[in-house]
Amino acid sequence: VGRLLTILNSEKIDSKTMFQGKLLHVQCDTVELPNGHTSTREIIRHQGAVVILPIFEDGSILLEKQFRYAPKQIFIELPAGKIDKGEDGLATGKRELLEETGYLANKWTFLANIYPAIGYADEKMDLYLAQDLNFVGHQRDEDEFLETFTVTLDEALELIISNQIGDAKTAIGLFWAEKILKDHWTFEDE
Amino acid sequence: VGRLLTILNSEKIDSKTMFQGKLLHVQCDTVELPNGHTSTREIIRHQGAVVILPIFEDGSILLEKQFRYAPKQIFIELPAGKIDKGEDGLATGKRELLEETGYLANKWTFLANIYPAIGYADEKMDLYLAQDLNFVGHQRDEDEFLETFTVTLDEALELIISNQIGDAKTAIGLFWAEKILKDHWTFEDE
Repeated sequence: VGRLLTILNSEKIDSKTMFQGKLLHVQCDTVELPNGHTSTREIIRHQGAVVILPIFEDGSILLEKQFRYAPKQIFIELPAGKIDKGEDGLATGKRELLEETGYLANKWTFLANIYPAIGYADEKMDLYLAQDLNFVGHQRDEDEFLETFTVTLDEALELIISNQIGDAKTAIGLFWAEKILKDHWTFEDE
Repeated sequence: VGRLLTILNSEKIDSKTMFQGKLLHVQCDTVELPNGHTSTREIIRHQGAVVILPIFEDGSILLEKQFRYAPKQIFIELPAGKIDKGEDGLATGKRELLEETGYLANKWTFLANIYPAIGYADEKMDLYLAQDLNFVGHQRDEDEFLETFTVTLDEALELIISNQIGDAKTAIGLFWAEKILKDHWTFEDE
C-alpha cells in the first residue's frame, strides 16, 4: 500500500468551504495529481454514522420503512443514525436502536465499515450486529416518522433479488445476515 | 405504499441552492412534516452513476485499486462512473468499463439499483453484471490513476469478512457475485 499511495495519491494544495450547514459541510479543494497536474475536488465532510443489523433468536431481522426526502421515496432500511460529536460508534448504535425501534440489545458485534459515497464524501458507517434483543418501547423524536417490521432471512433475500432494497447500507447488512445465519460466519464479541 | 406515503411523506415548501459545483449541487429545502411541523433538509443532487460487476468465464472478478480523495484512502472497487447528461445507464457502463479497464463485454445484465446515501443525496447507481469479456486496451484519462486486478470469489469473500471492502457499491456487487456464481441466481438478459 505504501508504494501504491505514492503512485495514486493526490495532495491538497488549497481548500475552501463552499457551504456549512447543520448536516453537510461542503468544500472545494485544489489538489496536485500524481502526474503534477492540478485539479479540483468537491467533497462533503460528514461526522459518520452507525448501522445496526438486529437479529432475533429465531433468525428474523428487524427493519424499518421510512420516507427519505432527498431521493423522494420510501425505503426499507436497517436502523441507523449519525454519530454525535465525540460519541463512540457503539454508543450511537445503542442509542439509535432504542430511539427508533424500542429495542435494547445485550450482544453487540462489529461487522464492517461502510463508506457509502467515496467519490465525494468522507462518511464512514460502522455496521454492528445486535442480538439478544428486548423490547422496552421506542423513543422517537416527534418529528421522526417510521414504521418497524420483521422479515425472515428468505424474505430478506427475496427483497434483494426483486430490487426492493435500494438503500446501500441495508443491502450490505442483509447480505451479512445471510453470512451469519446460513454460512455461520462468526466474530469476536465487543 | 399509498397509505404509507400519506403518513410518512414530507412536502417541499421552499428550496434554495447553496452551492452549484461541477459535480455537486447542494440545496437546502424547507419541508412540511406529516405532523404539520416545518423543518429543513440539506440535500445533494447528483446525476447518477453505474457500477459494473465484470465476471470472467472462470468465475474470477475484475477489480480496481484507486485513491479516493474525500476519505483519503485507497479503496478496492468495482469499475464505476457517473452518467453523463442524457446518457443511458447501460451506455455509461460500457463506456466506463472500457475506459477504466480496457475490457468490452458482450453480455450485460441489470442486477439492482443502489442508493448510496439516502439521508442526504438523491444519487442512484445502476448495478450491471458484465460477462463475455474481451480485452482491447484501456482508455484512461491522463488524470485518472488506478490499477486493475482479478480475484476469485473465495478471495472476494475473504476481503469482505476481513473488512477490506469499505466501498459500499463494491461490497454489494461482490455479494451479488456470490449469488450468481454459487447460488445461481439468474436474470433476464438486457
